[in-house]
Amino acid sequence: MAESMGRVTLPSEAGFLKETREIMERWGADALRDSDGTKLDEELKALDAKIYTTYFVARGHNEFAKEHMEECQQLYLMSKRRTAFAEELEVSFMDGYFREQVIPDYLHDPKRWWEVIDRTTGEVVPVGQWEVDPARHVVRITAVPFHEYTVSFLVYAIWDPTQMYNHITNDWGDRPHEIPFDVRQSSSGQFAKDYLVQWLKDNPSVDVVRFTTFFYHFTLVFNEQAKEKFVDWFGYGATVSVRALEEFERKYGYALRPEDIVDNGYYNSPFRVPTKHYLDYMDFVQRFVAGKAKELVALVHAAGREAMMFLGDNWIGTEPYGRYFGEIGLDAVVGSVGGGVSLRLISEIPHVKYTEGRFLPYFFPDTFYDGNDPVPEARKDWITARRAIMRKPVDRIGYGGYLSLAYRFPAFVDFIETVTDEFRTLYEKIKGVRPYCGLKAAVLNSWGALRSWQAYMVAHELRYKQCYSYMGLMESLSGMAVDVSFLNFQDIKENGIPDDIDVIINAGDAMTAYSGGEEWLDPALVSRIRKWVYEGGGFLGVGEPTACHANGRYFQLADVLGVDKELGFTLSTDKYFTMADPEHYISADLRGAHWNDRRDLPPSEARGRYQSADTSGFDFGESMRNIYATEPDTEIIEYSDGEVHAAAHPYGKGCGVYLAGLPYSFSNTRLLLRALCYAAGKQERLYRWFASNPACEVHAYPDAGRYAILNNTAEVQETAVFDGDGRKTDYRLAPGAILWESIQEW
Amino acid sequence: MAESMGRVTLPSEAGFLKETREIMERWGADALRDSDGTKLDEELKALDAKIYTTYFVARGHNEFAKEHMEECQQLYLMSKRRTAFAEELEVSFMDGYFREQVIPDYLHDPKRWWEVIDRTTGEVVPVGQWEVDPARHVVRITAVPFHEYTVSFLVYAIWDPTQMYNHITNDWGDRPHEIPFDVRQSSSGQFAKDYLVQWLKDNPSVDVVRFTTFFYHFTLVFNEQAKEKFVDWFGYGATVSVRALEEFERKYGYALRPEDIVDNGYYNSPFRVPTKHYLDYMDFVQRFVAGKAKELVALVHAAGREAMMFLGDNWIGTEPYGRYFGEIGLDAVVGSVGGGVSLRLISEIPHVKYTEGRFLPYFFPDTFYDGNDPVPEARKDWITARRAIMRKPVDRIGYGGYLSLAYRFPAFVDFIETVTDEFRTLYEKIKGVRPYCGLKAAVLNSWGALRSWQAYMVAHELRYKQCYSYMGLMESLSGMAVDVSFLNFQDIKENGIPDDIDVIINAGDAMTAYSGGEEWLDPALVSRIRKWVYEGGGFLGVGEPTACHANGRYFQLADVLGVDKELGFTLSTDKYFTMADPEHYISADLRGAHWNDRRDLPPSEARGRYQSADTSGFDFGESMRNIYATEPDTEIIEYSDGEVHAAAHPYGKGCGVYLAGLPYSFSNTRLLLRALCYAAGKQERLYRWFASNPACEVHAYPDAGRYAILNNTAEVQETAVFDGDGRKTDYRLAPGAILWESIQEW
Repeated sequence: MAESMGRVTLPSEAGFLKETREIMERWGADALRDSDGTKLDEELKALDAKIYTTYFVARGHNEFAKEHMEECQQLYLMSKRRTAFAEELEVSFMDGYFREQVIPDYLHDPKRWWEVIDRTTGEVVPVGQWEVDPARHVVRITAVPFHEYTVSFLVYAIWDPTQMYNHITNDWGDRPHEIPFDVRQSSSGQFAKDYLVQWLKDNPSVDVVRFTTFFYHFTLVFNEQAKEKFVDWFGYGATVSVRALEEFERKYGYALRPEDIVDNGYYNSPFRVPTKHYLDYMDFVQRFVAGKAKELVALVHAAGREAMMFLGDNWIGTEPYGRYFGEIGLDAVVGSVGGGVSLRLISEIPHVKYTEGRFLPYFFPDTFYDGNDPVPEARKDWITARRAIMRKPVDRIGYGGYLSLAYRFPAFVDFIETVTDEFRTLYEKIKGVRPYCGLKAAVLNSWGALRSWQAYMVAHELRYKQCYSYMGLMESLSGMAVDVSFLNFQDIKENGIPDDIDVIINAGDAMTAYSGGEEWLDPALVSRIRKWVYEGGGFLGVGEPTACHANGRYFQLADVLGVDKELGFTLSTDKYFTMADPEHYISADLRGAHWNDRRDLPPSEARGRYQSADTSGFDFGESMRNIYATEPDTEIIEYSDGEVHAAAHPYGKGCGVYLAGLPYSFSNTRLLLRALCYAAGKQERLYRWFASNPACEVHAYPDAGRYAILNNTAEVQETAVFDGDGRKTDYRLAPGAILWESIQEW
Repeated sequence: MAESMGRVTLPSEAGFLKETREIMERWGADALRDSDGTKLDEELKALDAKIYTTYFVARGHNEFAKEHMEECQQLYLMSKRRTAFAEELEVSFMDGYFREQVIPDYLHDPKRWWEVIDRTTGEVVPVGQWEVDPARHVVRITAVPFHEYTVSFLVYAIWDPTQMYNHITNDWGDRPHEIPFDVRQSSSGQFAKDYLVQWLKDNPSVDVVRFTTFFYHFTLVFNEQAKEKFVDWFGYGATVSVRALEEFERKYGYALRPEDIVDNGYYNSPFRVPTKHYLDYMDFVQRFVAGKAKELVALVHAAGREAMMFLGDNWIGTEPYGRYFGEIGLDAVVGSVGGGVSLRLISEIPHVKYTEGRFLPYFFPDTFYDGNDPVPEARKDWITARRAIMRKPVDRIGYGGYLSLAYRFPAFVDFIETVTDEFRTLYEKIKGVRPYCGLKAAVLNSWGALRSWQAYMVAHELRYKQCYSYMGLMESLSGMAVDVSFLNFQDIKENGIPDDIDVIINAGDAMTAYSGGEEWLDPALVSRIRKWVYEGGGFLGVGEPTACHANGRYFQLADVLGVDKELGFTLSTDKYFTMADPEHYISADLRGAHWNDRRDLPPSEARGRYQSADTSGFDFGESMRNIYATEPDTEIIEYSDGEVHAAAHPYGKGCGVYLAGLPYSFSNTRLLLRALCYAAGKQERLYRWFASNPACEVHAYPDAGRYAILNNTAEVQETAVFDGDGRKTDYRLAPGAILWESIQEW
């Protein structure tokens, strides 16, 4: 029996009434949901719980869709690059695409809507120099020999990507392919509303309509072997249509080219510094999605139900941190929690009454099978997310999958009973109370607030070699006593740097949207930041911050950071600054002790190779090559293999700090906290609401008169804890413990 | 007593007659030279040997120089980058320079000859917005706050860099500083000739005037602590003068800006893709140097002596592989040998009667001290250079330093006796005989033939982290049975690819002169190379070949190479090609066996970190990150850490091959040989004149009817040897042995 009740959503399934009731009581659940592959029966719906039901807007209605195939969703795709070996080149543009997913759009004139590009010159091939052969799906080009060509072409999507993925993965055989239709088109737009009205009438016991999701799926394209070819969880690829392009031109006063969408085959990946055209197009789609979703949500409300949005699948254009999201009028957002970053991504979403996190593991046979213990994964997910919850809680937690499967693992049921109680306890203590933040940091990249907590993600936070050394920065921040905001370059250019920011963070590989690329060639931007640092601000660069080779520099703020990257052009210049300071403030907690890093925690499973060659405690992940100190007053914190990997540099009253990479670990979280304090010139802040042991953390809520001490591991930990006045007390914490204390007045 | 005589130059010193005669006999020396710090006396000069005497043209005549300080050599220097923190900025432009080496030129109007640049915008600051204060060596700039500024200014050099280096290093106290004067100026030009005429009269026993060297020292600038600040062995920095700039403008029809020389502070390092202006300036200097040197050489010849040039020090503008070098009329060039690359750099120099290599170790106390054995270094130097000598011998070898020091090490004297005999023997056998070359390779970079055998060098072939993985390519080639030529991009654009080339090699870091940077955006160039490969050519890329991000590619010939580098923009695209072929032709000799690599051989002392994590035998040195296969038919040869490091890719009838780096080792020399054979589609060539053991090599001279088998180690080696028809014989070779065999006719 739960010690408290509520704020927990349980998946259930038909014919599982008694056990559902038992687990509801033990976990204190107050809502029931269906899942992929499960349905709730009437007995379950009659229980004393809110009933969530998954609702698909733009798929799952083939009877309608088949009558309106001209309203299928569309994408611009780029053919493979093909080299002309003679003066005529045939490009089989569908090569490499999955014909069960997409078919060429020959309804609209290819000469108007397609584009053939000479990728050797970058020039568009005049339409008079190519012909389409629809019978063979071939474009015949009058070519320059040994130039490479691509064809950008419109397709209709005839299979919803999520259903396609599940269908193929689970071998669903001849189950019909769900056809995705585009609500921008007149029949589909009308159908979506009409169907919802009727559905609400037909499903009176549903309390919460769980939109999964609205109109446009993130870009997910399969190859000819029915395997994933391209996946961009943020991609607007499937929002395109001739109608959309025509409306865009009317509203924005200029026409988009196919290349604005295809973008060299990069398809405007979030790693690309976004073009003005692409930002306009995103704005255009967001406005449409918000307006249309608002209509559906209004229907839900009119029927006396709640509207909840799933953060994923057909979420494109909702942009929960965007300027139109509030207009939709949603009651709630639910999303999957894989760690602190995705927790904050959900919990910080504005304009909703509540947020819900779906925790791992999903109750599926890949985890819940005989001989496996699901508790460690559940503990890992919980403990990792918990530190982010302490900063900004979701309002509810929940699970998904087959409850009957989970029920067969009593230790798991026991464990989740403690988790749900712990969640409710902490929620009651901290909800609406501003946590103590010792510092205020702004993450500066091309996306800014629009993509809060979404930086560096490929697919939905998969581990990628090129990303984990930056994702660790976000994961560390997600549970840190630091107020985190997100700025883009335009924000600074237009409004300057907000007064209360202590540290600006710029982190990423060169020329990506996360470091900013050519944005750094804007003299107004760099001089504004220099001035701000000079007057006392902190600037933390990770990886290749401010990188764009020009004017004798690679890091455009090398003067602030005190380091630059050797590209080969200054090898003739002697580099004398190679002595690291073994006593530096920033690396103080790496010395001597070695914590039990990563043994129990995702998302960076393996130490970078750097670490293996070095027992100093530093771990820069993929790290960065050929960084050197440019100034005699650069404080080198780590130097090895002829390179600087960590440094600090005074600049006026302010400071630049450089780190070569920051995969997530307790040690690196501490390193980051110290780096932020140091950059801000607020070193003394460290010992306020602070646990000496990096495996533990303190979260304080002065307005509520309490603080919590967390053990972030599955082992016993000992730590000194410093309160808000720096008074020290020693603690011994049970595995995974969270200990609440009252703030003592002097 | 030597078995043969001649082709050896001995350093000697006054008062060492008897021992000199003894060593001359044992080593078969036929020439005597002085060295830094030694003089030959009349008794020595009377011996039966040619007498070489070091001759300085543009230094060492302070009595003249002090009378003509306005004719001192000049340089353009760039101040440190200084940030304006207010609307006025003072730049102490001499900060960081050594005032005993350079002084500002206030004789010529700074407003005309200097340049102040806003490095934040890249724009030149109008001369009305800055003033020079000569009393304080300060430029006062009306600045934009928080922009960075530099001052490019003219200085006079008042201390010859080589003498300065020796003076400071050896603590020569108040010995006068030798003032470098500029023979372009009228008095200095006349003096240089007059003095030589008189000197030749005064030194009748000198047979060979060893010019050390002509007029302009390579760029070597010291800092305020009298330590090296900038060194570019290829740099034209010290050739500048107001007079030169004015003459340039008259001849080339446009004026150079200071920035044409200063180049963002990179000073046109050879790693920079050269600008048209810099190439014009080099041409201008070369024409002057050739013309002026020709006058001096004519005086030497008129006096019945030989003129020899030292390859180094004041060699700038001679460009031994340039278009004007032949006009000088030199008899000989002598240079220092540090390995196979520098041996070929000397031995391939055209337009001279003979070349001489000065071998290591120099007879100086740093090697010749009690308790140290100089033989291993001597053996290492000899064996390393020997494989290059087998391809193209120098005509003479020699040593330098204090003979009296070397004489105290009898084992060393014995060893050099064997070396000198071995040299004469092989020279007699191969001089003028074309060695068998199984393949013809062209190294393609921005410098081409002008800088034959000079790629990747910083200072004079020092080991640099950023270079050794490419230097290894050159070192491997220097002793390989491959005909090596050098092409620049203009050569190909104007004349196409020479018919007989088997493989084009493009190797280097992105955007450097060695990979070529934006040259690869020329459609004519890339399509020309594609066509050539398509029709059967081979293209070997090392590091970041053809790299310049544009049109959706980083490697512009990714289609040929079958690999590209992930910059972050295509992370959304699935990469399925990750399986390496463990049986690939190119890596065949890395499997199983491990040779005694590097234990006995420079120049890459340490294995790259890659190797330590991998026992497969691959060693890519610094290697390259995030390379992936782009095509299903890319043959992956090595894949680790989520990256491709070696691959091959068929392209029409030709082939592209990619290697992530190639530090010098026996294994990598073999890997390279196989890569070249494979790229050329001439795999069968491998087993012609071939030793199965990579520690051994075979050099064949069909026209002379003989071949040599070399053991390149200090240990016994066993190997199978394949002759020109592929017939196999087993050998056991003594340490360092060279075994001569006759070619058997069938």
